[in-house]
Amino acid sequence: MTTLHDCLRLDALDPLAPLRAHFSLPPGVIYLDGNSLGVLPAATAARVAQVVTQEWGTDLIKSWNSAGWFDLPQRLGNQIAPLIGAGQGEVVATDSTSVNLFKVLTAALNMAAADAPQRKLVVSERSNFPTDLYIAESLCRQHGFTLQLVEPEEIATALTSQVAVLMLTHVNYRTGAMHDMPAVTQAAHEAGALMLWDLAHSAGAVPVDLTAAKADFAVGCGYKYLNGGPGAPAFVWVNTAHAERFWQPLAGWWGHATPFEFTPDYRPAPGVTRYLCGTQPMISLAALECGLDVFDAAGRIVPNQSAMQTLRQKSLALTDLFIELVEQRCAGHGLGLATPREHAQRGSQVCLSKSEGAYAIVQALIARGVIGDYRAGNGAQHPDILRFGFTPLYLGYEDVWNAVDQLQQVLESEEWRRPEFNQKHAVT
Amino acid sequence: MTTLHDCLRLDALDPLAPLRAHFSLPPGVIYLDGNSLGVLPAATAARVAQVVTQEWGTDLIKSWNSAGWFDLPQRLGNQIAPLIGAGQGEVVATDSTSVNLFKVLTAALNMAAADAPQRKLVVSERSNFPTDLYIAESLCRQHGFTLQLVEPEEIATALTSQVAVLMLTHVNYRTGAMHDMPAVTQAAHEAGALMLWDLAHSAGAVPVDLTAAKADFAVGCGYKYLNGGPGAPAFVWVNTAHAERFWQPLAGWWGHATPFEFTPDYRPAPGVTRYLCGTQPMISLAALECGLDVFDAAGRIVPNQSAMQTLRQKSLALTDLFIELVEQRCAGHGLGLATPREHAQRGSQVCLSKSEGAYAIVQALIARGVIGDYRAGNGAQHPDILRFGFTPLYLGYEDVWNAVDQLQQVLESEEWRRPEFNQKHAVT
Repeated sequence: MTTLHDCLRLDALDPLAPLRAHFSLPPGVIYLDGNSLGVLPAATAARVAQVVTQEWGTDLIKSWNSAGWFDLPQRLGNQIAPLIGAGQGEVVATDSTSVNLFKVLTAALNMAAADAPQRKLVVSERSNFPTDLYIAESLCRQHGFTLQLVEPEEIATALTSQVAVLMLTHVNYRTGAMHDMPAVTQAAHEAGALMLWDLAHSAGAVPVDLTAAKADFAVGCGYKYLNGGPGAPAFVWVNTAHAERFWQPLAGWWGHATPFEFTPDYRPAPGVTRYLCGTQPMISLAALECGLDVFDAAGRIVPNQSAMQTLRQKSLALTDLFIELVEQRCAGHGLGLATPREHAQRGSQVCLSKSEGAYAIVQALIARGVIGDYRAGNGAQHPDILRFGFTPLYLGYEDVWNAVDQLQQVLESEEWRRPEFNQKHAVT
Repeated sequence: MTTLHDCLRLDALDPLAPLRAHFSLPPGVIYLDGNSLGVLPAATAARVAQVVTQEWGTDLIKSWNSAGWFDLPQRLGNQIAPLIGAGQGEVVATDSTSVNLFKVLTAALNMAAADAPQRKLVVSERSNFPTDLYIAESLCRQHGFTLQLVEPEEIATALTSQVAVLMLTHVNYRTGAMHDMPAVTQAAHEAGALMLWDLAHSAGAVPVDLTAAKADFAVGCGYKYLNGGPGAPAFVWVNTAHAERFWQPLAGWWGHATPFEFTPDYRPAPGVTRYLCGTQPMISLAALECGLDVFDAAGRIVPNQSAMQTLRQKSLALTDLFIELVEQRCAGHGLGLATPREHAQRGSQVCLSKSEGAYAIVQALIARGVIGDYRAGNGAQHPDILRFGFTPLYLGYEDVWNAVDQLQQVLESEEWRRPEFNQKHAVT
C-alpha cells in the first residue's frame, strides 16, 4: 500500500522532477487538465513579448525574413516530428486540428476515389472527438461517401471491402483508452483501407511512431500535451508516399510552390508544405515553440532514450498510482474506472465514471485546487466522466497523492452536493 | 505648391493627430506598409501579457468562461461590423482569409448549384490577390465550375448568364484601385450572379457598406489596416438571407449549435456562428481586439460621423498630398502613377510604377527609414510597383512630406543602384 512517504521518495528520485521548473504553474493548484489545455511554459511570456514588441512592433515586415516567420510552420513541424515518429520535413504546424483534418481526409477520399472507387465508407468510432466526426460527416456528404460509426470492439469486423478510410483518434478523449496503432493500421491496410490518425491526446502524451506503423495521414493538437497555449496552431503529417499525389483543397498562398511570384495559378509546393494555406497567427505560433522546447530538454535527461520513452515511464507510474490510490481510498462511493488498466491500452489520463454527481465532484475538486474536468455521458454505455490528465513534465507523485486525498475528502464530506457546485457554466 | 510649413500646419490642425499615441511606432521610421502588416497598438503588449500570464497561466481552462474566450470571435466580429456596414451578430473573427474564402465561396457555389444549376462560371480579376484565385481554382475544380479571369474593365461584359459568382477584392493589392461596391454588386445581381467581396485592403482603410450594397458574402484580413498583429485571425460576413441556407464545409465543433453536448452528429449553429470551425489561437485573437479598439476611439472624434468617414477624409488628403509631392519633386525619374487619381476609385494606398529599379528603390527607402514594399510586375500591363500604404490612424502630413523628400534623394543620388539594395530576400 503506497504511502505519502513513498510518494515523496519517488519524487526525490525522479530524474524528470527538474522539468517542473520549465513551467509557470499557479500556486496551490494540482493541474490534471493538461489533456484539455496545457500549462504555461516558463519561457513563453518573454518569448511572446519579444514577438510582440521586437519582431512585430520594431522590425515589422522585416521579420518575415529576419525572425524566420515564413518558415516557422516547418521549423515547429520538425520539432514535433520526433514526438510522433515522423521524419524531418514531414510535418507542418498550422491552422486548427479540424481544418487540418479536413485537408487530409479530403486527400484520403481523393486517393480512394482514384485507387478504389467502389469503396464508399469512412469508418470511425462513435465516441471519437465530435469535431472529427463533424468534419468527416461534411466531407462524406460532399464526396458521396457514408460515415459509419462503430464501437471500438466493432472496428475489426467493420473493415470490409467497402471501407475507403479508417479514421480514429489514437487516445480517446473521454476514456483515455489507446488504440494499438501498428496493429490497427495493419488491419486497415490488410482490408484495403487508408489509415488516418488524430493524435490530439497522443502527441507529447504517449510514444507514437507513425513511420513504423506505416500510417497514411495524421493530425494533432498544439494546445494540449504540447503546451502551446490556448488554441495554439495544430499540426499535420502526410506519409511521404502520398504527400504529392493531390492538391489539398485549402490551396492557399502559403502552400504554393513559389508564393512570392504572385502567379494567378496555383502550383502546390513539394511535400507537406502544400498542406499550408493562409497566413498563420505568428504570436500564437511562436508561443508553441516554447512548449516544444521542453520536450527537447526532456529528451536529454536519460541517455539513449527519446523524450517520449522517458516521459512514458513516468506517465504510466503516475496513472498507475492514481488508480491504486483511488481504489484504496475512495472505494464505496460508486466510482468506476473508465480507462483501461492495461498499459498498452492507456493514454496519459485516467477517467472515472460516476452515475450521480460527476459534474459537481469536479467543481468541488476545482474549488480545492485540483483541476480536472467533466464530460457528460450519453446513455448506459457512456456514463458521466471525471477526467484527469497526467502530464509527467510537471506533475509529481506527491501531486497524485494530494489529488486523491482531496477527492476522498470531497466524496466523504459530500460537499459536492452544495448548490454552488451544481451550477453549469457555458463551457465545461 | 504645398510646403513643409503647410504640412506642419495641417498636422497641428488635424483632429485625428492624437490617435498616433495609440500606437508604438519604432523611432525614425515612416511606416507606409500598414496595408501589408499593420503596426503595434500601444495597448497590445500589455493585453497579450495578460492573456499569457493571467488568463492562460493562472486561470487556465477557467478562462473559457471567465475571460470570455469562447465568445471572442463574435465579440470581435461585432467590433468589425460597423467598419464594413454589417449588422451586429453578422460577422465572426476566425481562421485565415484564405480559409474563410473557402467557406463562403463553397456556400456561394452551393447556392448557385441549387438556384441556377446552368451557371458554371466564377469570374474574378486576373490581378486579384493570388491566394483568392488559388482557393477559387481549387473549389472550381472540385465543384465542376470554371474560373474565368478578366481585366477590371472586362468585368461588365463578362457578367453573362453563365456566371454563378463574381468574386472581387474591393481594393486591388497591387494598384490600390477600388471598385464601386454598390454598382458592381448591382451589376452582378442584375446578371443573376452572387457577389463575394474580399475586404483585405478595405476594412479599416475605406468606408464599406455591405448591407447597403446588398452584397452576398465577404471576407477580410485582421493584420493589415486593422492592426491585429502578424497573421491575426481574419473575418467572415454572410448576408443574413443566406447565412442559414447551407452548412459550410469546414463543419467543426465551434460552429455547432450545441458544441458542449458533444453529440456525434453535426447541427450547424444559427447565423454566421456556423462559419466557425476549430479552436482559435486565443493569444493572437486577443491581440486583434486592441487594433479594433482604436477604431472605436476614432469614431468618437468627430460628432455624427462614423470612424471610417472620419478616417477616409484624412486618408484621401494624405494620398492626394503624396501624389502631388511625388509629381512635383520626383518628376523625370520614370515614375508612373498606378493608383487612380479619382477619389472614388482609390483605396488608402498609392502605387508607383517603374520599369527599372523598383525593388532597389524600395530597399534604399527602407534603409532610410521609409518603409513601403515592392510587388513584381508581370508584363507590360502590370509593371513593377513601389507600394505605399497610408494609414490615417498614425500617419501625418509631415510624414508624407518626409517620405517624398527621401524618395527624391534616393532617385537623385541614384544610391538605389548599389549592390546591397539589389539583393533579393526570400520574402518581399
